[in-house]
Amino acid sequence: MSRFGDATAVRRVDEGRYEAVLDGDYGFAEAVNGGYLMAVLDRAAVDASPHAHPVSTAANFLRVAKPGPAQVIVDQRKAGRTAATALVTLVQDDRPVVDALITTGTLDADTEPSWAGPAPDPAVPPLAECTEFLPRTGERGFADQVDMRFDRSTIGWLDGQPSGSPESRAWFRLRDPHEPDAYALALAVDALPPVALNLGTKGWAPTVELTWHMRAIPASGWLNLYGTGRLLAGGWFDEEVEVWDSAGRLVAQSRQIARAGR
Amino acid sequence: MSRFGDATAVRRVDEGRYEAVLDGDYGFAEAVNGGYLMAVLDRAAVDASPHAHPVSTAANFLRVAKPGPAQVIVDQRKAGRTAATALVTLVQDDRPVVDALITTGTLDADTEPSWAGPAPDPAVPPLAECTEFLPRTGERGFADQVDMRFDRSTIGWLDGQPSGSPESRAWFRLRDPHEPDAYALALAVDALPPVALNLGTKGWAPTVELTWHMRAIPASGWLNLYGTGRLLAGGWFDEEVEVWDSAGRLVAQSRQIARAGR
Repeated sequence: MSRFGDATAVRRVDEGRYEAVLDGDYGFAEAVNGGYLMAVLDRAAVDASPHAHPVSTAANFLRVAKPGPAQVIVDQRKAGRTAATALVTLVQDDRPVVDALITTGTLDADTEPSWAGPAPDPAVPPLAECTEFLPRTGERGFADQVDMRFDRSTIGWLDGQPSGSPESRAWFRLRDPHEPDAYALALAVDALPPVALNLGTKGWAPTVELTWHMRAIPASGWLNLYGTGRLLAGGWFDEEVEVWDSAGRLVAQSRQIARAGR
Repeated sequence: MSRFGDATAVRRVDEGRYEAVLDGDYGFAEAVNGGYLMAVLDRAAVDASPHAHPVSTAANFLRVAKPGPAQVIVDQRKAGRTAATALVTLVQDDRPVVDALITTGTLDADTEPSWAGPAPDPAVPPLAECTEFLPRTGERGFADQVDMRFDRSTIGWLDGQPSGSPESRAWFRLRDPHEPDAYALALAVDALPPVALNLGTKGWAPTVELTWHMRAIPASGWLNLYGTGRLLAGGWFDEEVEVWDSAGRLVAQSRQIARAGR
């Protein structure tokens, strides 16, 4: 299994009860990455479901998750022919850390879209024109696992020159030999630096709520991430991410609401 | 109290336990409207919270809600200084009908946005150029409660001429003397006809999951609704709605994933 597969694995210990070991390398100094946590929860939801894919994941981030052992509780709420729904909770030290309402369904890799909107404009520039951003040693865990190449026009905040527009665009793949799947998409939708950094906010921006929808089974290869936002007010900002695959298809959509760093 | 206020009222019967009476006039023949149900759940969440506004509501619609008595269970998950989170469940006949993860916070009416994106383009046409759509008698409950005036270019499906683009634009207000508030916004984000009707789908399109974020306290007067979508594939489609108030501010954002009618 790939490193990412191992790191997001859940072990069933009883009906609706799983154990996981959270890998601190999928995160930064402050916290384990929220997308990584959703990948763990989605794995448990799919294991407990008759369906194959996490079609909808709505997660509330209550506390900072720590590397190490965790429990995942899957409370089935409704099982239907097309979809099943569960409340899935990540627990550490007997306290809920993340709650997620997860709807599973089964997507068909051969489905042609009935209608598809245009790809985002502007596109992510060609890979060779993009920049790898490697944080300082000691905070590199996430960057050692995930290979991201950024549209330079969207990371001016790194040099103290935020663009003024809440946009972020990047190529994304796991450094692992781990082809894109539902769980890589969960990681991808929360992998971009907060779009509010381009509006002059600083530092970590804790996600309060993030909902993502898996729209198709991704093709192998790189993914493209398009992050945008609509409003920063009272310390709250939204971030929307679209994930497009190497076949030119929209494979995941997310929106999160987060608190801006000071 | 307004009709809408009465219809969404919850009565506390014990800690975290409320009673409501669902009003079938906030719906169509098939079901009580999902936005109305979220308004009921949001009221219970706010009543049980130290905070004043439902900042984030992520709802999974499990079963069709029926007019009449219902219970609302509020399970507090985390109470913080900036935000509190609860799992809120609408119950009928001892079965969960809607589950919602709701984060409450307190928005300040005097907050000026730090950054705001542009209003959607095209805008909703002037009120006098828009069309009131009144369903046949017998299905009119919702239209008797809610006054909506549609951009004619987005309701061609009514005449068998879907536009081919998943867009829907309308003015919105309650016919009640009920000024816009958090609960009217909950209703507004699920009030448009499914955007997929413009792609040639037919009939009712059951919402599986809808997340909406309250971004500001709305000014009095009409609201503008902007509905869009990105993909219809395998019978699943997304619908995004932005709600703008009479002061020209983004006050709510939503995305839902739904099943297309046949």
